[in-house]
Amino acid sequence: MAMPLHATFVGGATGPWQVDRLAAVRGEGLPVVERLSVIEGRESAPPETAVWTLRGVTSNERYVTRTEHVALVERQPPLGRPEATRAALIPVRKTDQWWNLSQDERRAIFEERSRHVSIGLEYLPAVARRLFHSRDLGERFDFLTWFEYAPADAEVFEELVARLRATEEWSSVEREIDIRLVWDAETRRRPL
Amino acid sequence: MAMPLHATFVGGATGPWQVDRLAAVRGEGLPVVERLSVIEGRESAPPETAVWTLRGVTSNERYVTRTEHVALVERQPPLGRPEATRAALIPVRKTDQWWNLSQDERRAIFEERSRHVSIGLEYLPAVARRLFHSRDLGERFDFLTWFEYAPADAEVFEELVARLRATEEWSSVEREIDIRLVWDAETRRRPL
Repeated sequence: MAMPLHATFVGGATGPWQVDRLAAVRGEGLPVVERLSVIEGRESAPPETAVWTLRGVTSNERYVTRTEHVALVERQPPLGRPEATRAALIPVRKTDQWWNLSQDERRAIFEERSRHVSIGLEYLPAVARRLFHSRDLGERFDFLTWFEYAPADAEVFEELVARLRATEEWSSVEREIDIRLVWDAETRRRPL
Repeated sequence: MAMPLHATFVGGATGPWQVDRLAAVRGEGLPVVERLSVIEGRESAPPETAVWTLRGVTSNERYVTRTEHVALVERQPPLGRPEATRAALIPVRKTDQWWNLSQDERRAIFEERSRHVSIGLEYLPAVARRLFHSRDLGERFDFLTWFEYAPADAEVFEELVARLRATEEWSSVEREIDIRLVWDAETRRRPL
């Protein structure tokens, strides 16, 4: 995953994902919409029916060590599993204070004190995940994290989200939206 | 410097910087131009006379520790010093292999083995510097580094560049252009 992959998440009246729930966890909310679609590519033009668009780009890893990377790759499932008909899109913005920390300080909060990777590993392979970076694109959020799971793993996913929100790292989150989605299209799920 | 600052470097027939030299250090070159201008802001429209444009964004630090950060901040000069009438714009692209390394591996090459920060510190406060990230913007280079120095420090700057190019880190550079500039405008230098 070395090459950056751009994606635009479009909330509006169309798209294969039905919005089951859209809630502000912290800070300002986003308008509630009925459907969500995901458009790949940098030059994507959102449909005219878009109520909001959120853009992001996959990037190189920022905090994970080689040992953690290997553990993640061994256990993480691909996106687009046919049974993974539930998804969550969680846009997050962190505080200026977080961004003014140096790399070693952010890493220490992220993993040594908040166990972000270690906690995430416990939920593999149930939950598939892809992180998109938005901050350097001039977007209103810093990250968009996309999760996919089967209906049977919905409770497990709630537990993962609750544990992460209870960490020291999350005290640096100043805005967070939780958007839950159900695959609702005639076609089967396909890889994002 | 927490908020991302977007900039577009425009090579063409206009601009306050006269291009003294434009050379490919490694990989494909860029068309030679006479002048360079720097436009701030994300939505900047380059002039029609542009031969090429290079876009980048300042971002949070990626490798530097708090101790290194403090040492840099104590010694680094601001951009736009009136006497700093020489500049260099050095676009660099690193290999896929570099980007596939984990954070701890990149950090080890960057500083523990290549002494990127330590070497740079030796050239402060003579050389002012600002790093722009381009990779996640879908640009052809990964970084654009902008340097400013006085004519009297030109040799010192050559030494800095030569030392960095001799490091292990630089074996991961697959494309590099070296553009040298002279301030040539009726107005005095002003902060970038």
